[in-house]
Amino acid sequence: MRNQGRDTEFPIYISTTIVEGFAWISGKLFEIVQKMAKRAIAVLSFSIALFTLAQQSSCSQPFKPFSFHRAPRFPGRSSTSKLRHLYDSQLSKQVPRYGYETRYFEQHLDHFSFSKLPKFNQRYLISSEHWSGPGRLGPIFMYCGNEGDIEWFAANTGFMWEIAPSFGAMVVFPEHRYYGKSMPFGSKEKAYKDATTLSYLTTEQALADYAELITLLKRNLSAEACPVVLFGGSYGGMLAAWMRLKYPHIAIGALASSAPILHFPDIVKPESFYNIVSNDFKRESTSCFNTIKASWDALTAEGKKKNGLKRLTRMFRLCGELKNTDDLAGWLDSAYSYLAMVDYPYPSDFLMPLPGYPIREVCRKIDGCPDGTSILERVFEGVSVYYNHTGEVDCFDLYDDPHGMSGWDWQACTEMVMPMTSNPDTSMFPEYDFDLSYYKEDCRTQFKVNPRPRWITTEFGGKDIMTTLKTFGSNIIFSNGMLDPWSGGSVTQNVSDSIVALNTQEGAHHIDLRAATAQDPVWLVEQRATEIKLIKKWLSDYYQAKGATI
Amino acid sequence: MRNQGRDTEFPIYISTTIVEGFAWISGKLFEIVQKMAKRAIAVLSFSIALFTLAQQSSCSQPFKPFSFHRAPRFPGRSSTSKLRHLYDSQLSKQVPRYGYETRYFEQHLDHFSFSKLPKFNQRYLISSEHWSGPGRLGPIFMYCGNEGDIEWFAANTGFMWEIAPSFGAMVVFPEHRYYGKSMPFGSKEKAYKDATTLSYLTTEQALADYAELITLLKRNLSAEACPVVLFGGSYGGMLAAWMRLKYPHIAIGALASSAPILHFPDIVKPESFYNIVSNDFKRESTSCFNTIKASWDALTAEGKKKNGLKRLTRMFRLCGELKNTDDLAGWLDSAYSYLAMVDYPYPSDFLMPLPGYPIREVCRKIDGCPDGTSILERVFEGVSVYYNHTGEVDCFDLYDDPHGMSGWDWQACTEMVMPMTSNPDTSMFPEYDFDLSYYKEDCRTQFKVNPRPRWITTEFGGKDIMTTLKTFGSNIIFSNGMLDPWSGGSVTQNVSDSIVALNTQEGAHHIDLRAATAQDPVWLVEQRATEIKLIKKWLSDYYQAKGATI
Repeated sequence: MRNQGRDTEFPIYISTTIVEGFAWISGKLFEIVQKMAKRAIAVLSFSIALFTLAQQSSCSQPFKPFSFHRAPRFPGRSSTSKLRHLYDSQLSKQVPRYGYETRYFEQHLDHFSFSKLPKFNQRYLISSEHWSGPGRLGPIFMYCGNEGDIEWFAANTGFMWEIAPSFGAMVVFPEHRYYGKSMPFGSKEKAYKDATTLSYLTTEQALADYAELITLLKRNLSAEACPVVLFGGSYGGMLAAWMRLKYPHIAIGALASSAPILHFPDIVKPESFYNIVSNDFKRESTSCFNTIKASWDALTAEGKKKNGLKRLTRMFRLCGELKNTDDLAGWLDSAYSYLAMVDYPYPSDFLMPLPGYPIREVCRKIDGCPDGTSILERVFEGVSVYYNHTGEVDCFDLYDDPHGMSGWDWQACTEMVMPMTSNPDTSMFPEYDFDLSYYKEDCRTQFKVNPRPRWITTEFGGKDIMTTLKTFGSNIIFSNGMLDPWSGGSVTQNVSDSIVALNTQEGAHHIDLRAATAQDPVWLVEQRATEIKLIKKWLSDYYQAKGATI
Repeated sequence: MRNQGRDTEFPIYISTTIVEGFAWISGKLFEIVQKMAKRAIAVLSFSIALFTLAQQSSCSQPFKPFSFHRAPRFPGRSSTSKLRHLYDSQLSKQVPRYGYETRYFEQHLDHFSFSKLPKFNQRYLISSEHWSGPGRLGPIFMYCGNEGDIEWFAANTGFMWEIAPSFGAMVVFPEHRYYGKSMPFGSKEKAYKDATTLSYLTTEQALADYAELITLLKRNLSAEACPVVLFGGSYGGMLAAWMRLKYPHIAIGALASSAPILHFPDIVKPESFYNIVSNDFKRESTSCFNTIKASWDALTAEGKKKNGLKRLTRMFRLCGELKNTDDLAGWLDSAYSYLAMVDYPYPSDFLMPLPGYPIREVCRKIDGCPDGTSILERVFEGVSVYYNHTGEVDCFDLYDDPHGMSGWDWQACTEMVMPMTSNPDTSMFPEYDFDLSYYKEDCRTQFKVNPRPRWITTEFGGKDIMTTLKTFGSNIIFSNGMLDPWSGGSVTQNVSDSIVALNTQEGAHHIDLRAATAQDPVWLVEQRATEIKLIKKWLSDYYQAKGATI
């Protein structure tokens, strides 16, 4: 022991060059059973992931969120290539906005067993530019990478970059295993080969990756005593909250933005998502809400008529012939859901180029049609705000790349079973029940894997969180925009003095993590100021406990 | 979701009959490289485990603690078969002392991946005899099974059984995977076959087993709201503390008795164990301490003399010829260490039949020899109190079953790397440094596995626990007997209002968990009373938070 000193056996940073040979494989990886696309499986899909989707379209294997309600929704790919190209060129400008170094860290594939498995290289982005260093116990801000390329999360989490200088903080963005360039088995093709190679894609392993990385990073910098603050949005927010709970010795606090850690069986109502989407529309216009509500039956009726599908194809300017009304319903459903997530108060291009409060604009279109306009023509006008705000789309492709497989599909089919339903009494959507046995069957078909729908709550809790965490844990901010449909599965009440909910009535999906803009409303400026104040408090408490005078 | 109800896909209790066919394999399982026995590797070994060792000697594969300092120590097996038989017959009377049902529960082998692995049946003991039931939110007392047969832990944790009735508590003793009858792959022979089959023997997996078991057990009894209180001693105490920290939603508090969660690299001084052993002797007699301290050189010198080993063989009444003095030193070292652990105030047969305060008796022998008695003769008289208190042993076998392999060996060679050293300036032991590279080499030779010496502290923390847990977590009692050499690696200061240390100056290794006796000193009675009071407080806080009036 006395002879040990620093462990020399621990992996050290691997130069980027080592992984230059990383094969970035193109083309589809799996055959997806087509019927999957027609099944009503409601699963988590985050806008930040969708952002990634939109961005990664130039990559060979686009990120594909696993989000089905009545049918899968892939809005990013429903737009034309032309539009997509436009987004790509716009957004590529964002990527190098913040300065960081890219490094790789060797990780165990299974932290919780000693199986003989190949290690893999986890990518992380790091900036010490503003770090006050170990001597001053300079804090380390770590973002918990979500289900996508970490560069995009870094580019879209301006809040961390903007506040780091005043905190003298280092900024670290580790990438989630099996995403971006953090591929086990040497390549995405190999990592995604089958259920055996995918089996280590779990949240617990990802958290352990972050724990290992930050621990060794600190040790190598003689910065063991430097406090770590976690950040994360959406699934990344869930990871941040869970990491604070599971690794309190590693991180002193977490800002978990739009983190639906309660959206699991038997905790919140599974209909909350679609109820909130619906309320976002209703608050803008009851008639708009009613039009959409009536549109599902109108769509079904039209589809049953002679040449109905052909008329719908024309009416909705579809690139290809509509095969059934369910596909179109899914396309509409998808637009409404994502609109609710990105119902930001200012024009944004997070997922699609959109005006401020885009739902207001959708409803203006729906309500503003001349008398005599049919319900279906109205909803087409409405969703065009989402799918074609720039007016550059010639036709919409519902069947754009229905193949391919993503890590999130796998996660949804294993641990991240987040049931969603819709209730016509409380929403503008038709009735939909979540059928677990159907869901499981699909997962077995798709991946040959059995979901464990109860595992996440066994591992991380969630049920009766008010009792559990009232006297356990500290320093977590659950920030929520109440327009965000995921807020229904988030923590929206203060749990204790230092596990708090910061809700903004006008906010949508983790807007607080984005870079400040000139158009930020007061409530957003205030929300961020409160977050900064709380993080400062965590740090000062920590320094006080350490007896440090910083 | 709405249609789900209770998950039917979850495993249900398996009748004992299913596992009746369990092969309880005899004979050695691995070839152990002999030199392992000569290497100085200091690793955790708990007296409760040793108790198990003594008991399981009639089983085909005796439990073998992994405890080396200068040489491996297996005191239970150093005694003659005759004596061992005596212990077995005495202790077998204890086993059925408490009434419970034996059940089995199907577990995933790797909770944290979705690898296609066979499930296994975990044994657990359960008694609902005094449970006040779900209607009254009756508590559930769960013992975190250690590295051995769960029946022996149940038999030796009388405290839980004794207090359960007044709490109206259910009592559950789940067995640790890879021990007793909770064998993956269908049998111990298969489970212990090699590093591949053993690879899932980790603490994190064991904790997840307990989490899964208790969650489903409660669900099946409609007892989701019933509070769980954890208990554990030694390694089981570490599991109890870690489980409270990692699964606060599952257990409201933990009594972690003699739980050296800090005995890991870079936290406590690795020499603490042997310093405490030494102080236990010094407090009885300085001359006794000095005699032992001088004996190591005397032993080495004697061994170097012509026919020295033969004389030592006779002097120490060894059954076989002594091969080198290191082996004898290890045998002595072992006796002193275990004497310190079981330095109970009343006669006990926890490990060996011993008088009350056995170290006092050892020193009385060492000091009481007639003038002119040699140092080595004195220490032989002393350790005879440990190895031959009943006087029935004809000769001592240092080489009794040096083969065989235990789960604890594996755990010590993977995660549970607890470095120990000895310092002649502060102890009665010769200098010994912990050499990590040597340690690792041995583990690679023995198991073909690479230890991860930093993993436990990354996963569970420990360093700077006062800062980490000051404002995080609650409801843990770390109880310590300060005579116990493991107290040096335990939490012995209050961390916060409800994470507290209960130290008894005269206590040894988790004596508080044992059944009450007529000879219990006042401090032990008071310690247990305080534990009961604290557990009551946890429960009343919980009921209050739930708004329940029980």
